[in-house]
Amino acid sequence: MIVVLNRLSIALSGKRKFMREISVDLGKKSYPIFIGEDLLANTSWLESLIASQQVMIVTNTTIEQLYLAQLKQSISKFKPAVTIIPDGESFKTLGVMNKIITGLLESKFSRDSYLIALGGGVVGDMTGFAAACYQRGISYIQIPTTLLAQVDSSVGGKTAVNHELGKNMIGAFHQPAAVISDTDVLKTLPDRELIAGLAEVIKYGLIRDSEFFFWLETNMEKLLERDADALTHVIERSCINKAEVVAQDEKESGLRAILNLGHSFGHAIETAKNYNDWLHGEAVATGMLMAADLSCRLGWLDKESVDRVRSLLERAALPVRLPTGIEPARMRELMSIDKKAKQGKLFLILLKGIGQSIVTSEFETEPLKETLSCFPSVATGDK
Amino acid sequence: MIVVLNRLSIALSGKRKFMREISVDLGKKSYPIFIGEDLLANTSWLESLIASQQVMIVTNTTIEQLYLAQLKQSISKFKPAVTIIPDGESFKTLGVMNKIITGLLESKFSRDSYLIALGGGVVGDMTGFAAACYQRGISYIQIPTTLLAQVDSSVGGKTAVNHELGKNMIGAFHQPAAVISDTDVLKTLPDRELIAGLAEVIKYGLIRDSEFFFWLETNMEKLLERDADALTHVIERSCINKAEVVAQDEKESGLRAILNLGHSFGHAIETAKNYNDWLHGEAVATGMLMAADLSCRLGWLDKESVDRVRSLLERAALPVRLPTGIEPARMRELMSIDKKAKQGKLFLILLKGIGQSIVTSEFETEPLKETLSCFPSVATGDK
Repeated sequence: MIVVLNRLSIALSGKRKFMREISVDLGKKSYPIFIGEDLLANTSWLESLIASQQVMIVTNTTIEQLYLAQLKQSISKFKPAVTIIPDGESFKTLGVMNKIITGLLESKFSRDSYLIALGGGVVGDMTGFAAACYQRGISYIQIPTTLLAQVDSSVGGKTAVNHELGKNMIGAFHQPAAVISDTDVLKTLPDRELIAGLAEVIKYGLIRDSEFFFWLETNMEKLLERDADALTHVIERSCINKAEVVAQDEKESGLRAILNLGHSFGHAIETAKNYNDWLHGEAVATGMLMAADLSCRLGWLDKESVDRVRSLLERAALPVRLPTGIEPARMRELMSIDKKAKQGKLFLILLKGIGQSIVTSEFETEPLKETLSCFPSVATGDK
Repeated sequence: MIVVLNRLSIALSGKRKFMREISVDLGKKSYPIFIGEDLLANTSWLESLIASQQVMIVTNTTIEQLYLAQLKQSISKFKPAVTIIPDGESFKTLGVMNKIITGLLESKFSRDSYLIALGGGVVGDMTGFAAACYQRGISYIQIPTTLLAQVDSSVGGKTAVNHELGKNMIGAFHQPAAVISDTDVLKTLPDRELIAGLAEVIKYGLIRDSEFFFWLETNMEKLLERDADALTHVIERSCINKAEVVAQDEKESGLRAILNLGHSFGHAIETAKNYNDWLHGEAVATGMLMAADLSCRLGWLDKESVDRVRSLLERAALPVRLPTGIEPARMRELMSIDKKAKQGKLFLILLKGIGQSIVTSEFETEPLKETLSCFPSVATGDK
C-alpha cells in the first residue's frame, strides 16, 4: 500500500543529490512526501509540483527571515503572493486564519489556486485549514521547517486552529498535494524545538515499531548531534509509520487514534498552561510517560518498559514530569473535552508493550486517578 | 439514482398524515429529504433520526419565538442544548460561527454529537459549517424554515460563512444527516421571503426543467396565495432537481455549477450592497434575468424566452432591475472574485433555451459589458 522510492537521484547546481519519496495512498487524494537535502533550491523540480498560476506562501515572522527569500526565488515563475503570520501556538486562531483568507481574496485567488505552508506545525495546520475552507477547498503544499512538523503534523491531512476552550477544536481533514521535507532547514532549528520533535519520533516506536524504538535507544546521541543520516532515517521511518496508519484510516474512525499516544494528557497540559511555556512535543513526552504509567498500573505494561520509556525521554532531554500547579481534577476535566471522548466516555491510547498500543475506554478509573495524582511535577522552566 | 417515495403515511395525533421522502444518493454520505405537514410535532419519528445523546439546536432570534418550543418538546428525550444567533445575512460570519463552537465546547459535546439547524439559509449554512469544523466534523440535521432554504440551501451540503470581501468565501462541503421540510412553517413566512424563495424555484425550471417552468407559468398565482398543494409540489420538484444535480457532482467540479444561474451577478449585487436591502433570492432574480439578457446578446437565447423570464419574475413580484449606484465596472470587478472564476477567467451559467443551461467562460466580453451597462436600474426599496 505504501511505496518507498529510496534515493531518487536529482541534479542540482551540477551536483547529484539524493531524495527519498514516500507515497501516501489515499485513492484520489494520494500524495507524495519528499525527504532530502537542498530541496528548496531545486527550482525546476519545485515548479513541477504546482499546478496553478496563483500561488501564495504562508509563513511566520521567524521563518520569513530564514527561508522565504530562497523559496520565493525558486518559484519566482509564479510571482507568489505572501502572507506573514505571527510566530507561536497562541496565534493558531480563527482570527489569524481569516487573515490568510483575506490575503487570498485581496489577490483575487480562485478555487484552483495553491497555498504553500512554509513553517512548523502552527503554520502548517493553519494554512491547511485555510486551504480546506477557502472557497470550500483549494490545494496546498506543506514545507515543514521543524522536525516535529516533518515527522508528524505535515503528514496526514489534519488541519485545525485552536479555540480558547480546547486545542485543534476547529478544523478539517484536508490532504496536501505534496509534503517537502528539506533536511537542511533543521540546521537552524533551536535545540529545544529539535528535541520537542523527537517526542513524536519516539511515539512511532512506542505505538507500532519496536525495532525503531530500539534503533532510537541505540542512536539518540547521534540525533542530538544532528547527524544528517540519522535525522533523515528518523524522518523517513516516522513518515512511513504515519502514512501507513493514515492510509488505513484517513478520518480517525479507529486505528488512526493510536497516533495520539500521550496527546490526551498532553493537550490537557497545553490547555491548562494556555499554550505557553510548554511546547507541544514536550507536553506529549510527559503525556506518553503518563500513558505508560497508567498502562503499568492497569497491569498491561511491565515496569521495565516504563523505565525504558522514561530513560529514552530523559536522554532526549524531554520532560518526564508535569508542570506544577495543575490539579489532578483539572487535568481530568480537560481530558474529558478531548476529541477522543465519545458519549461522555474517555478513550485513551495505552500500551500493551513497546510497539503495541490500543485505543480503549475500557479501563478502571482508579488507576487513572492514581496516575494523575501521583505523577511527579516540576516548576515551569525546570523540566 | 434518486428515489422518490411519495406519500409515506405516518400517524400523528390520531390522524393520518402524508410525507414525501427524497433520497439524495451520495454513497456513504446519502441522506433523506422529508417533505410534509406537521413534521415538527412528530416526536417518535424525529427522535429516530438522531443517533446521539448529545444534541444542540441552533436557531435565530426570530425563529426562536416561533418554533423552538415545539422542537424542544418533540425531542425533549435528548435534553437538547440551544444556541441562539442573531437574525440576518450580515451575521453569517466566522465570529458568530465561533459562538456555536463555544456552545458545543461548553456543553462538552464529543465528535458523535448532533447539531440541528432550525432556520433559514443563514442558520443552515452557518450551523452546517460549524458541524463541518467542530472536531473536524460532526453530524447535523437541517430543518429549513424558509422556502428558499427548503428548495435550495438545505440540500446539497454546501456550508459557508461570508467574508467582508466576498459571500460564502469560507466554507466546506458537508452533507447533512437529514433534511426536514415542514410545510406548516411557511405559514408564518413574510411575503417578501416567500417571494425571494420563488427565485430559486424558477431557477430549476430555467436550468434543466422546462416542464416545471411551464407549470410555474400556469400556477404562479396559486403559489402567491400559498396554496398548500402547490407549495408542496414546488418543494418536491425543486429538491429532486437539486438532488439529481448534486448526486452527479457533489463538489462542484462541473455540472453542479448550473445551480448558480444568476448567482455571479447576484453575489456581486449583494456584495456591493454589503448584504443589506436586497435578499439573496431578489439578487438572484435580477441576476438570472441578466444571464438571460447576456445569453440573448450572445445570440444563444431568443428574445421571446427572455420576455418569458422577465414576465414570470415580475408576476412573482421579484426585482428585474439592478439597484442604483453600482457602476458596471464595479459589478465586473466583484464578479471576478466569484468562486466560479478560474485562472482569471470568468465562468458564467448562461442559457441556450428555457430548461437548457451551460457553464462557460467562452463568450465575448463586449456583450457582457453591454448587459452590465445597459441593464435598467431602480432606487433601492423600489424593486
